Amino acid sequence: MMIRELRETVCRLHAELVRYGLVAWTAGNVSGRVPGEDLFVIKPSGVSYDDLTPESIVVCDLDGVVVEGTLSPSSDTAAHAYVYRYMPEVNGVVHTHSTYASAWAARGEAIPCVLTAMADEFGGEIPVGPFALIGGDDIGKGVVETLSGHRSPAVLMRNHGVFTVGDSPTSAVKAAVMCEDVARTVHVARQLGDPLPIAPEDIDRLHHRYQHVYGQRSHL
Amino acid sequence: MMIRELRETVCRLHAELVRYGLVAWTAGNVSGRVPGEDLFVIKPSGVSYDDLTPESIVVCDLDGVVVEGTLSPSSDTAAHAYVYRYMPEVNGVVHTHSTYASAWAARGEAIPCVLTAMADEFGGEIPVGPFALIGGDDIGKGVVETLSGHRSPAVLMRNHGVFTVGDSPTSAVKAAVMCEDVARTVHVARQLGDPLPIAPEDIDRLHHRYQHVYGQRSHL
Amino acid sequence: MMIRELRETVCRLHAELVRYGLVAWTAGNVSGRVPGEDLFVIKPSGVSYDDLTPESIVVCDLDGVVVEGTLSPSSDTAAHAYVYRYMPEVNGVVHTHSTYASAWAARGEAIPCVLTAMADEFGGEIPVGPFALIGGDDIGKGVVETLSGHRSPAVLMRNHGVFTVGDSPTSAVKAAVMCEDVARTVHVARQLGDPLPIAPEDIDRLHHRYQHVYGQRSHL
Amino acid sequence: MMIRELRETVCRLHAELVRYGLVAWTAGNVSGRVPGEDLFVIKPSGVSYDDLTPESIVVCDLDGVVVEGTLSPSSDTAAHAYVYRYMPEVNGVVHTHSTYASAWAARGEAIPCVLTAMADEFGGEIPVGPFALIGGDDIGKGVVETLSGHRSPAVLMRNHGVFTVGDSPTSAVKAAVMCEDVARTVHVARQLGDPLPIAPEDIDRLHHRYQHVYGQRSHL
Repeated sequence: MMIRELRETVCRLHAELVRYGLVAWTAGNVSGRVPGEDLFVIKPSGVSYDDLTPESIVVCDLDGVVVEGTLSPSSDTAAHAYVYRYMPEVNGVVHTHSTYASAWAARGEAIPCVLTAMADEFGGEIPVGPFALIGGDDIGKGVVETLSGHRSPAVLMRNHGVFTVGDSPTSAVKAAVMCEDVARTVHVARQLGDPLPIAPEDIDRLHHRYQHVYGQRSHL
Repeated sequence: MMIRELRETVCRLHAELVRYGLVAWTAGNVSGRVPGEDLFVIKPSGVSYDDLTPESIVVCDLDGVVVEGTLSPSSDTAAHAYVYRYMPEVNGVVHTHSTYASAWAARGEAIPCVLTAMADEFGGEIPVGPFALIGGDDIGKGVVETLSGHRSPAVLMRNHGVFTVGDSPTSAVKAAVMCEDVARTVHVARQLGDPLPIAPEDIDRLHHRYQHVYGQRSHL
Repeated sequence: MMIRELRETVCRLHAELVRYGLVAWTAGNVSGRVPGEDLFVIKPSGVSYDDLTPESIVVCDLDGVVVEGTLSPSSDTAAHAYVYRYMPEVNGVVHTHSTYASAWAARGEAIPCVLTAMADEFGGEIPVGPFALIGGDDIGKGVVETLSGHRSPAVLMRNHGVFTVGDSPTSAVKAAVMCEDVARTVHVARQLGDPLPIAPEDIDRLHHRYQHVYGQRSHL
Repeated sequence: MMIRELRETVCRLHAELVRYGLVAWTAGNVSGRVPGEDLFVIKPSGVSYDDLTPESIVVCDLDGVVVEGTLSPSSDTAAHAYVYRYMPEVNGVVHTHSTYASAWAARGEAIPCVLTAMADEFGGEIPVGPFALIGGDDIGKGVVETLSGHRSPAVLMRNHGVFTVGDSPTSAVKAAVMCEDVARTVHVARQLGDPLPIAPEDIDRLHHRYQHVYGQRSHL
């Protein structure tokens, strides 16, 4: 059944956050929209990644109210719900405090697009969203408004961390992994001087090609 | 039986120090207060994390004198004992030389609260305690006096490393993990400029919410 | 049979890219020339390193056209093919976006030879190749032209990443591992001052000795 | 039998170099003196750490001539042999190119003693030895002459890497692990300012205590 598979996928994807060192203790979460329903599934709050099971993944409606599951959902649930409500093309959302991305976020500085891999995945700079307190719609609103003007699937929330979106939970996790990877490389490049710019038209070409040619067309 | 379970917990928690890269060789230790008794359990001195067993964990009284166990206790036992004597609400203590936290400690500089995750866990800056020699009560005294004026469960001991406390050994380990995580992120942020401040009243709100709403209320 | 063994080797070598942290998600690939034939084998595009099997490795001719395999080859196949066409002594090619090497590449700055290990493996600085768009021969041409004037088996492609070559796929992977290792060490050295130079004649002596004396002569 | 146990120990200790990230590919080696004989055992040259077995460890006399083993010994054998000839109290030697220590070595800069853990293990700064070419006694001589005036069991060889010594192979590996750990922490501390000094008399007290009180007295 659909929700069961999605819970398995979302449960398993948290292990990628751990593998790529994007999360410490329990600070990071993945969610996925239930296809064709006004529901999404998300990590329970404060549960160790070792202890996550498909059954522990919580099912919520698009207001963030739990409809299935015995545990409390992630404290970031309201932000995920807001994204699903206002970005119908998004089927996966990830939130982390990954080190290098959060460092750019702490300075409120967008990551400039100086790597071809950044052009590929983000189509330009990775933008900064507003400072927002947890507990209402402010974070979700900041994520949606910032992403609306950009090709980037990642946004750096000021003094906080990263939100990424995708057409699937896997795509959103990939964006979170690549976001930290380029945040780190551009940081390191900047430590000893100024990275060379990439011409905007080359960024466009790279982004277009990557979104349409990369990977396996049908069977993966 | 109580002490046996606590030894198992404390033994197992050392693996988290290793997993998060907070310790090199044998330099770091976890202790836990025995509920309802004037005793605590602590790592034996100089024993490799691979070789730790629940049986090897040493039981001490609150003066740091061994009451059970065939090995010598951690050379930091006096500091742990002091904390248990003077902070009755503390049930777990952790000490590490984790890289980024120790780097702030080497400069004698508090870590400013510029991340929401820092507001959540530490409620403000992570303060610096005095330089103190091992072998008496000086380290423990420095830990207790510094933590008394702060919401932070972590203190950076000058030119030395970190001590964290918690209402359980697990909470103290979590604080040690989060301390290194934010020490690293703020360091990285500072390398390329000045992190943006968070308003004190927002720090208060975030801290209050995190301490009262985050995680699972009863069953975890 | 030759191709089967080569596929196994190339499949297995991708695990070294993962082990040494040279790749995030699927961004990095290894290829190997089929001895005595105008063919090479290469990673399929967009496939996770966990899912790679010898069977999934794609066989191409030297124009990059697939001759065996059901998956699309790496999007970097044209660059690998170009290298095999124009550098007949090369039997292995590796491409990564490893962090520190890519940071030098983002600044368009060669890595100066200030470590004996660099003299050993690279015989001098690691040079920078041009900015080139994916999709034609430009990247391959930039790799070949840059390497032609150098003893280095590694080239930093501007704003992009690293290509390394070797007389076997294993040698090319070793060069990729060592390239990131020295890129990191020289970066760290430069953060706090100027590394001391090594005299050119000492670089020559070290390189000559390493290429002729190091390792096991026949049986490895 | 003695040599067999020593080969097992030295073989196993190479895994610690890997675990602590001190080595890339095959660049690092451990040796151990055979008690009561003019012999030592050392890693074979260019062999992967995964493939090391006790049998592959080579036995040499104190001139570095192989007396048992079918593989060529480490290309650093002459340096190890020199140390065993001129430092009779040394029973273990380790050589690595670990990142942070090698970065200090590339600048030819000693690591200042600004951490209590450094005072404990090294008793002061970690000194820099001369630039020396491989292939004769120059490296060994540089190691011995530099260590003679210091309490430190580690020396940073200019533009090269680290040598550590100990009264056992395990002690030398511990010194190599701690050397990289403090090299990293002091580097990080220095990136954002000047670490506070520790008074020389406090360094003396810390070193004396650590060498005489730390760990288990007899049974470990």
